[in-house]
Amino acid sequence: MDLATALAAFDRRDWQTADADDGPVRVAMLGLGWWTIEQAIPAVAAGELCETTVVVSSSREKAERVRDDHGTIERAITYDEFVAGEATDAYDAAYVCTPNAYHLEYVEAAAEHGKAVLCEKPMEASIDRAERLAAAADEAGIPLMIAYRMHTEPAVRRARELIDAGAIGEPALVHGNMSERILELVDDEQPWRLDPDVVGPGTSVMDIGIYPLNTARYVLDADPVTVQGMMASTHEAFDRVPDERAAFTVEYEGGVYAACTASQNAASASNLRVIGTEGELNVEPAFYPWQDRALRVTRGDTTIEAGVEGVDQMTEEFDYFADCLLSDRPFYADGEHGLVDMRAIFGVYEAADAGGTVVVDEVGR
Amino acid sequence: MDLATALAAFDRRDWQTADADDGPVRVAMLGLGWWTIEQAIPAVAAGELCETTVVVSSSREKAERVRDDHGTIERAITYDEFVAGEATDAYDAAYVCTPNAYHLEYVEAAAEHGKAVLCEKPMEASIDRAERLAAAADEAGIPLMIAYRMHTEPAVRRARELIDAGAIGEPALVHGNMSERILELVDDEQPWRLDPDVVGPGTSVMDIGIYPLNTARYVLDADPVTVQGMMASTHEAFDRVPDERAAFTVEYEGGVYAACTASQNAASASNLRVIGTEGELNVEPAFYPWQDRALRVTRGDTTIEAGVEGVDQMTEEFDYFADCLLSDRPFYADGEHGLVDMRAIFGVYEAADAGGTVVVDEVGR
Repeated sequence: MDLATALAAFDRRDWQTADADDGPVRVAMLGLGWWTIEQAIPAVAAGELCETTVVVSSSREKAERVRDDHGTIERAITYDEFVAGEATDAYDAAYVCTPNAYHLEYVEAAAEHGKAVLCEKPMEASIDRAERLAAAADEAGIPLMIAYRMHTEPAVRRARELIDAGAIGEPALVHGNMSERILELVDDEQPWRLDPDVVGPGTSVMDIGIYPLNTARYVLDADPVTVQGMMASTHEAFDRVPDERAAFTVEYEGGVYAACTASQNAASASNLRVIGTEGELNVEPAFYPWQDRALRVTRGDTTIEAGVEGVDQMTEEFDYFADCLLSDRPFYADGEHGLVDMRAIFGVYEAADAGGTVVVDEVGR
Repeated sequence: MDLATALAAFDRRDWQTADADDGPVRVAMLGLGWWTIEQAIPAVAAGELCETTVVVSSSREKAERVRDDHGTIERAITYDEFVAGEATDAYDAAYVCTPNAYHLEYVEAAAEHGKAVLCEKPMEASIDRAERLAAAADEAGIPLMIAYRMHTEPAVRRARELIDAGAIGEPALVHGNMSERILELVDDEQPWRLDPDVVGPGTSVMDIGIYPLNTARYVLDADPVTVQGMMASTHEAFDRVPDERAAFTVEYEGGVYAACTASQNAASASNLRVIGTEGELNVEPAFYPWQDRALRVTRGDTTIEAGVEGVDQMTEEFDYFADCLLSDRPFYADGEHGLVDMRAIFGVYEAADAGGTVVVDEVGR
C-alpha cells in the first residue's frame, strides 16, 4: 500500500466500475427489523447505485409505514404477496434480511421471479437449506451474493492487500473476537437470534462468530479446513442455544490457525489480529458498522497506524452488489462461498458437542 | 484503581514488606545461558533484596568468566559440584534456569542442601518429573517458587486488580498470544527448546504458550478446567516438535474461555485481552521483558490507557522471591501452582494429538 495513496484515498472503491448513470438497481427489502430500517434503507439512500423501491414485511401496516417514510419506496407488500409475484416490475433485486430460517423461501421466490439476491449471512438455519438456497439460485440462473459487509470495508480490504503484499511475512496466527449484548440491542422479549428453530444451532458463533471466521478467511485468502470449539450458556435467556459464550479455533489452508471468540452476552467489542512471520496486523474496532476504524501494522521496530472515519459499510456493500450486477461480473461471496462458512460454523457446534476436531468439508455431507 | 495513585505509582510494589537491610538473599544461578547472563544476573544486580554469589555451569571456564565479570559472585562451580554440596555456605537460594529436563535433578540437590528454590517454568519436561520436583521440595521443607514473572509485572497486577474490582464486569472471554523467532534469538545450531528430550512434548505451547495460559489464570484468579488444541510444524528445524505454530483454547473456572496462540517461528509479539460483560481490558505488549507496557481498559464509550515504562520484570521477580523468603510467607506460585499449568499444557498436546477436549485435572494421573 502506497502511503500517499492511503492518505488520499484509504477508502477508495477499488472495485467500482459503474456509475450512477448506469443504475439504479431497484431493491426490494425483505424483513423490516431494526437492521433493515436503521442500517440497510439509509445505507442504500446514501449510496450511488441502488434505490429501495419495495419493502416486504409480514405486517402490511408496518410495510406501509416504512414506505411512507421514504420517497423512493413505491410498493409495500406482504411476504405472501412477494412469493406470489406481486410488484415484480418494481424491483430488480431482493435483499433478504429475514431471520435465518426464512431465507430459503424468499430466495426461492426471488429466483422464480428472476431477481438477483443479496442474502444475509449466515445463509440459512441448516446446511441442507443453505444448499437448497444456493441450488435454487443456480438453477434459476440468478446472481446470488451473501452479504458479508467486511469484504467491502476499506480497512479490511487494505489489510488483505497488505498481507498479500507480504507486509507481515507469511501469515501464521489469527485472533478475532466479536461480542455484543444482544438482549440490550433488540427490543423483542424473545429475540429470534436465541430461538434455535429460527437462528439455527446457536447464536454467538452463528450470528457474530461468523465475522472473525469469515474475515480471517478473506484477509488470508484461504478457506477453513478444520475447526474445534468450546461453548456454554448459563443466562436463562440463552437456555435454548448452546453458545452464550464460545471460543473456537480454525485451521485455514496453508496452516494458519485462528483463535476466535464470540458472545451475544458480553461487552460490545470486535477486533481482528493477524500475526505473521515478520510482523503483525490489527484491525480494531473491526466489525461494527457505526465505529471509526484503525488499521495498525507492526514490523520489527516500525508501527504504522491508520485511523480512518468509518464508511457506511452497508452503503459499500449495496453499491458493490449493484456494481457487479450492472457490470455483469460475479460476486466475490457467492453461494458456494457462503456454504463453506455454513459447514465451518456447523463444524464448530459439532466439535463443541462431541469434543473433537471437525473437518469442515465433511460437515453436513 | 485510583487514577492519582496509578499515575504516581503504577509500578508500586504492593507486595514488598522487607527492605535492603533485611537481605540480601544470596543466589546461586544454575545454567548460564543467555537468559541468566543477559536477564537474570543484571536484574538481581539492579534489585534490592538479592545478590548473585554463586554461578553454576557445565563448563567451569564459563562459570569463572561470568564470576570474573561480576563483583558479587564468590564461587564458580560445576553442576556436579553443586549436586555434591560445594559452596553451600555461599548461597541461600538457587535459581534453576537450566533446560527443562534438568530442573528436577538440581531442585532435588538444592532441597537436599536445604536451600530455597526459584525454578523456571515450565517446571520440568514431564508431569511425572514435575510432581517429583514439587515432592522433593515439600519433603525437604524448602520454599519452592515457580518463576512466573508476569505475577510481579505491574501492568498485569493492575489488570488483575481492575478485573477483581469489576472494571469490565464479569470476565467472559480472553485472547492471548506469544510469538517469537526462536532461531534468531539463540545462537545454538540445535536449540534445546526444539529437542523433545530436553524441552518436553513441544516448544511453542510449552515454552511461551504458558504465558497467555498462566497470565489469564492469574488475572482471572481461576484455574484451567478443560483444553483443546491444534498445532503443526513444517519448518525443518521444528521436525522433532509438533508445534511450530499452535492455537489452543482453555476453559477456566467460572466458564471463561481463552483463545490462545503461540509460535516459536513467528514475529515477536505478545498481548493479553480480557472481554467482560461490561468492558474490555488489554495489556499489549504483554510478555517480553524489554518492552514498555500499555494497559488499556474500555467500558462503554470510555477508554483509559496507561502507558508505562517497562520495569525490569526479572528484578521484580527476584525481589518478590526474596521478600517472601525474608518475611517467611508463602509464594503465590508454588509447586502446586506450577503443576496445574503442567497438566494444562500437556493437556493441550494430548488434545491436539487426539483431537478432543481434555480435562486438565486428569492429565498425567
